Amino acid sequence: MYSPEVRTAAIIGFGYMGASMALDLLDQGVRVTAHDLPDALCGLKEVESFQDVEIATSPANAATADLVVLAAPIQTNLRILNEIAPALLNTRLVIDVGSTKRAIVAAAESLGIGARFVGCHPVCGSALSGWNHSRPGLFRDRRVYLCRTAESSESAAGLATTLWQSVGATVEAMNADEHDRLLAWTSHLPQALSTLLGVTLGTRGIRRTDLGPGGEKMTELAQSSPEVWSPILLDNMDNVGEALDAFAEQLQDLSAELRKKNEQEISRVFRETSKWASPAPQGQGVSRVERRSGTARRS
Amino acid sequence: MYSPEVRTAAIIGFGYMGASMALDLLDQGVRVTAHDLPDALCGLKEVESFQDVEIATSPANAATADLVVLAAPIQTNLRILNEIAPALLNTRLVIDVGSTKRAIVAAAESLGIGARFVGCHPVCGSALSGWNHSRPGLFRDRRVYLCRTAESSESAAGLATTLWQSVGATVEAMNADEHDRLLAWTSHLPQALSTLLGVTLGTRGIRRTDLGPGGEKMTELAQSSPEVWSPILLDNMDNVGEALDAFAEQLQDLSAELRKKNEQEISRVFRETSKWASPAPQGQGVSRVERRSGTARRS
Repeated sequence: MYSPEVRTAAIIGFGYMGASMALDLLDQGVRVTAHDLPDALCGLKEVESFQDVEIATSPANAATADLVVLAAPIQTNLRILNEIAPALLNTRLVIDVGSTKRAIVAAAESLGIGARFVGCHPVCGSALSGWNHSRPGLFRDRRVYLCRTAESSESAAGLATTLWQSVGATVEAMNADEHDRLLAWTSHLPQALSTLLGVTLGTRGIRRTDLGPGGEKMTELAQSSPEVWSPILLDNMDNVGEALDAFAEQLQDLSAELRKKNEQEISRVFRETSKWASPAPQGQGVSRVERRSGTARRS
Repeated sequence: MYSPEVRTAAIIGFGYMGASMALDLLDQGVRVTAHDLPDALCGLKEVESFQDVEIATSPANAATADLVVLAAPIQTNLRILNEIAPALLNTRLVIDVGSTKRAIVAAAESLGIGARFVGCHPVCGSALSGWNHSRPGLFRDRRVYLCRTAESSESAAGLATTLWQSVGATVEAMNADEHDRLLAWTSHLPQALSTLLGVTLGTRGIRRTDLGPGGEKMTELAQSSPEVWSPILLDNMDNVGEALDAFAEQLQDLSAELRKKNEQEISRVFRETSKWASPAPQGQGVSRVERRSGTARRS
């Protein structure tokens, strides 16, 4: 039990993230209730590691838990927060784990539960979804952004911090505006590009199996759950739009230089970006060679 | 020895691909000479697996080998093919392993060595470069495109096929025009997008370490060798330009729908692309659950 104040947890939206959190909490002795549609929870109790999870098919009684975790797609989180807010009497902490933070933080404030709410975003993105892909330790060594409301109490913020630390994550505080602006670039843009590459190749009649390892890697995120991602992009439209525009501009520049056969410029772009993307000098290259031959040399 | 006709091989450009090929050939008992700049080969002989490789710092005597493998960046391959072509007397097969095929195949034809030349493109792309990252078995289970010249002899084509099969690859014949058109979409476009994402994020002041696992994956190819990639894009400019334009169009469409908050359309794009990108119904999802719990259920 990561805190004596948290003996019971309600996980609303029992997918990849929610179920992984459940596994870590169960391991700590917390009593976990899984809230999701009956269809989504079908088969759950047959899995040994989930045998102790209680199943609830309506979020109504979630409000009695010490900890409430909103882990459904972001629009569902908003809707359910609205539903359960009036009943949240004894709950010590309400968090969400969605990829955007402005809307949910604002909702918590306007519903009058700002003191007990902390928006959370564990950055452990993956194309996987569903509890059948969940695993204990998912959050270990991951970064979690914590976005307090205007009224988050010290006690709620402390509980949220301890929760994430207890599952091995590192927390980073940030306000919701900053968060959504940053994540548009570091997360939502990469997801959009992978999806757009899939659209482009699919439209050309190319299947994913026609790709080499590089192309496969670049379209892996395109597998991500549409139910999760299309609301994220819409919710963060202003910031994502800006990031997409910046990307489009770089794309146009490269295209133009390519058509001019501007070798110098193309090569500058690749050189500088390779430097940006490569690990710092004492990176993997050296250690691999050292292990193998005793000579330190980098490609 | 994969064929009694090939007892000696000259690998010109001893990087990730060339050195990996060398390891496989050495294993077959072929005598291998590594041709590269002295600086690039520094330390090579200290590595046990490369002890039997002979070192040559000029391509001049490569022409005496039974098999010549051009494994330098594509512009260098073209230049060296020009230099050594007149001396290629006893060589049974000359191949290259570059990512574009029109220019090198045309060069082999115009240099009068078309009969003994087969353009090859092993699709095992990676951001790695340099012999210090090479490994035996790199080509196992990989696809290799074979592009014959107008005059490739049956014997040369047969030797090329056997060579790749002997290292575990699957060959796919294709003419050079087709190859360059297809690879612009399946390989050069994904590489360009990864680089452009790096440019975009770098320009915004974001470091690669600020990214989550998804963003990291999407910028992995951006680490690729600029010496290798900038010439590929320039050489395949017409096809790559077309692929970039098609991508830009999809990007513009998504941006526009996003700004219109067209939920239905955004969600359609994500849904269809996720279907395109996901493994076929009997894919990994099911088997993982089956292994774990005996219930077959997909997310």
